[in-house]
Amino acid sequence: MYQDTNRTIVAPATGSGGAIAMIRVSGKDAFEIVGKIFKAKAEVEDNAKAEAEVEVEGGLGRVQGFRILYGEIIDSREIVDDVLVSVFRAPNSYTGEDQVEISCHASPYIQNKILQLLTENGASPARPGEFTQRAFLNGKMDLSQAEAVADVINSETEASHRLAMQQMRGSYSKEINELRDKMLHFASMIELELDFGEEDVEFADREEMRSMVKEIKSYTDSLRDSFKYGNAIKKGVPVAIVGKPNVGKSTLLNALLKDDKAIVSEIPGTTRDVIEDTIIIDGILFRFIDTAGIHETADVIENLGIRKTYQKIEQADIVLLLAEASDGAAAINKSFSEIRNQVSDTGKKLMLVINKTDLLDKTALPALRPSLECHEKDCIMLSATEGSGINDLILSLTGIIKAGYSSSQELIVTNLRHYEALKECSHGLDRVLNGLEEELPEDLIAVDLRQAIHYLGEITGEISTDEILGNIFKNFCIGK
Amino acid sequence: MYQDTNRTIVAPATGSGGAIAMIRVSGKDAFEIVGKIFKAKAEVEDNAKAEAEVEVEGGLGRVQGFRILYGEIIDSREIVDDVLVSVFRAPNSYTGEDQVEISCHASPYIQNKILQLLTENGASPARPGEFTQRAFLNGKMDLSQAEAVADVINSETEASHRLAMQQMRGSYSKEINELRDKMLHFASMIELELDFGEEDVEFADREEMRSMVKEIKSYTDSLRDSFKYGNAIKKGVPVAIVGKPNVGKSTLLNALLKDDKAIVSEIPGTTRDVIEDTIIIDGILFRFIDTAGIHETADVIENLGIRKTYQKIEQADIVLLLAEASDGAAAINKSFSEIRNQVSDTGKKLMLVINKTDLLDKTALPALRPSLECHEKDCIMLSATEGSGINDLILSLTGIIKAGYSSSQELIVTNLRHYEALKECSHGLDRVLNGLEEELPEDLIAVDLRQAIHYLGEITGEISTDEILGNIFKNFCIGK
Repeated sequence: MYQDTNRTIVAPATGSGGAIAMIRVSGKDAFEIVGKIFKAKAEVEDNAKAEAEVEVEGGLGRVQGFRILYGEIIDSREIVDDVLVSVFRAPNSYTGEDQVEISCHASPYIQNKILQLLTENGASPARPGEFTQRAFLNGKMDLSQAEAVADVINSETEASHRLAMQQMRGSYSKEINELRDKMLHFASMIELELDFGEEDVEFADREEMRSMVKEIKSYTDSLRDSFKYGNAIKKGVPVAIVGKPNVGKSTLLNALLKDDKAIVSEIPGTTRDVIEDTIIIDGILFRFIDTAGIHETADVIENLGIRKTYQKIEQADIVLLLAEASDGAAAINKSFSEIRNQVSDTGKKLMLVINKTDLLDKTALPALRPSLECHEKDCIMLSATEGSGINDLILSLTGIIKAGYSSSQELIVTNLRHYEALKECSHGLDRVLNGLEEELPEDLIAVDLRQAIHYLGEITGEISTDEILGNIFKNFCIGK
Repeated sequence: MYQDTNRTIVAPATGSGGAIAMIRVSGKDAFEIVGKIFKAKAEVEDNAKAEAEVEVEGGLGRVQGFRILYGEIIDSREIVDDVLVSVFRAPNSYTGEDQVEISCHASPYIQNKILQLLTENGASPARPGEFTQRAFLNGKMDLSQAEAVADVINSETEASHRLAMQQMRGSYSKEINELRDKMLHFASMIELELDFGEEDVEFADREEMRSMVKEIKSYTDSLRDSFKYGNAIKKGVPVAIVGKPNVGKSTLLNALLKDDKAIVSEIPGTTRDVIEDTIIIDGILFRFIDTAGIHETADVIENLGIRKTYQKIEQADIVLLLAEASDGAAAINKSFSEIRNQVSDTGKKLMLVINKTDLLDKTALPALRPSLECHEKDCIMLSATEGSGINDLILSLTGIIKAGYSSSQELIVTNLRHYEALKECSHGLDRVLNGLEEELPEDLIAVDLRQAIHYLGEITGEISTDEILGNIFKNFCIGK
């Protein structure tokens, strides 16, 4: 089904409303089909006029790529609309096929009429993502690039946009392919040894092989682990603010919202039943979990076991324990260690935020800090009402996410499918290392290696099945 | 304000959502501004490659019109998006100015970023309709054509689309201008007589002049009168179905809705507080007024004076009196004459619809027809439950509207502003005729004639003020 590229497909590529709409036609009969309903007019630049007249006479088939024609869409003898038609010739088009883009007035009536005329003349309505799928099938981009097209369109923040662009433009694929090439090199050496099986030769030094597989695995693992950050950037970073009532949660949130650097996002909360405040800071979307609920709930800090707080922490990547400066070091340390126990080994980042520093005696404040059982970098002193220290908190929040970038590498995984593939690849490499350790026969090691290579290949689509393609493209919008 | 064409303007021209968005830039600095943020890549057709490389080196200013470049939008050193850029050179563009259309991925983030980069580099956000306004100011189209652009985008039906297209493509303007030229000819002759005032010459035969002014006025009047139909087609035709309860109003409506020719429109009712069923038949939108209300209201036919029925009739262009065949001719005639009195001299079209013919004795039905005091063509016999006669009703409904076309002329006025101008023009011509009749001095006749000419000129924009332009374009969408 997904290889059915004989059809010439058509779909509107622009959204609803607006002044101008664009209808995309792609496939081997694109020129012929559009030619049947389009009549070009030679009203173009003087120096292009003679040329255009030739084009007009010859129909769309003679028009060069990357050219625009002005003309009319005709239904029988009636003019449906004045349009611009952009012509792209295979392989120099988005899909890699002959492609025509019709820019018409954005009335639904006109769009429907043009779509109807095109299908009557042999075009088929495109399925979701079918243009991008064809770009993949025609080698214009690999699978991870195709997936990134949807991410680019859906990116809400600068950071998620940047990652999606990077992936769409292929720098991601390049690294994955280099990794895969290295592994293929090992595989071929081991398989060569197999061919000479009887003679018991070793083309690859086992020690050297082990250290290189280790190196590859370490890179694969760091890629895999970057998903936590990549996903946070793509979907937003869930943050839980916990603490006893009246400690200033809503005041803190308001202070964050008011900061120059914060853009109050209009994106509605994505998790059901939970009202979220979202803030974009430095291009990163932070989702403050269930803050509306906090205002009503008496989740006293002594009573941290209550389900609501647990759930909030459960959903968060970053947990902010908000305490009052006047509580004193002992009480604060107690609460902090309770939550630290809860989040230990979960990968969640815990920070201690001491609020209401303005209410504390000027001499008491410097004394408090050294008594807190918390790394200095994980502790922020602030006054939400006065606004002091808010900037420190913002720097810490963005710093946590940005640390995720640099601590691993340039490349960030944002796609769950890639994450799963990297996990499987890593397991395969574990078995390879194990096999080398235990001096297992080459054929067993080769099987594990091939398995690991297979999973990397799935990311870029070197290996793909109809099922994989179907799952990927069904979530695209129509016209892309 | 509306003549400020020194600004280079920018706006998104496509709607929200979708895969692709288009941002339009127009004005004298369009190439320079886009050139600052766009980096072309020479990945185009082989035979256009060398050419493209020249273009890339030379920036947008050297690109020919009606050409597309593939490349990147750059913010400092970061790539914002891969885009297609379409280049149009003055005067061969929509606005008549240098114009660039940037096709980018449809994420709001990308669109905002590109808009931001363009304004940072000197472009101004376009006001509603400003692109079309410039097309008018640069002589690419006259004012009635410019107005039709908005009508084309907003047309919901085939019929309204056809009228808007006709107007946008200038056949409307052509006739208005011909009419104006005729009047200008008379005016110049009369003014010539004025120049020779002392000598008492008559260049124009008064009798001939009167008959020609009459002819012009008759055409102007028919144009003015076509507005009733033009407006009905543009805004939909309001139809009221009145009659006693249980006469089958909702069954009739359902039968109409189910007919092959009827398209159930998804356009919500436009008048407040009134629920409407809308049906498109033969490309014409019929709005059935307050049919939901009818189902609940006990507006017995004997009680026609009740406010609800009056209001419905008030709002309608077509009134269908629905009666039951078994009521007998006397009762039906009584109801019909009551409503006929009410609609007389209102220009509303009244039709008598006899329902439930299936329940009547086979011999009684042929006897009923001749006893009805109603023109045969204005009376439809049908059975809404069995579906017989529904097609006759549909033909009558569309016939009423189509009669509006042919009874006057090809040209239909759909625009209230044009209607008002034609009305004023007609008044002016009345005064001219009167002046000729009463042999008033030439200078008085000339003033009236100039007045009439002035109003015609307002339609096409030969005469326009900032106020007129402001009123017209403020209702456009941004990006058009």
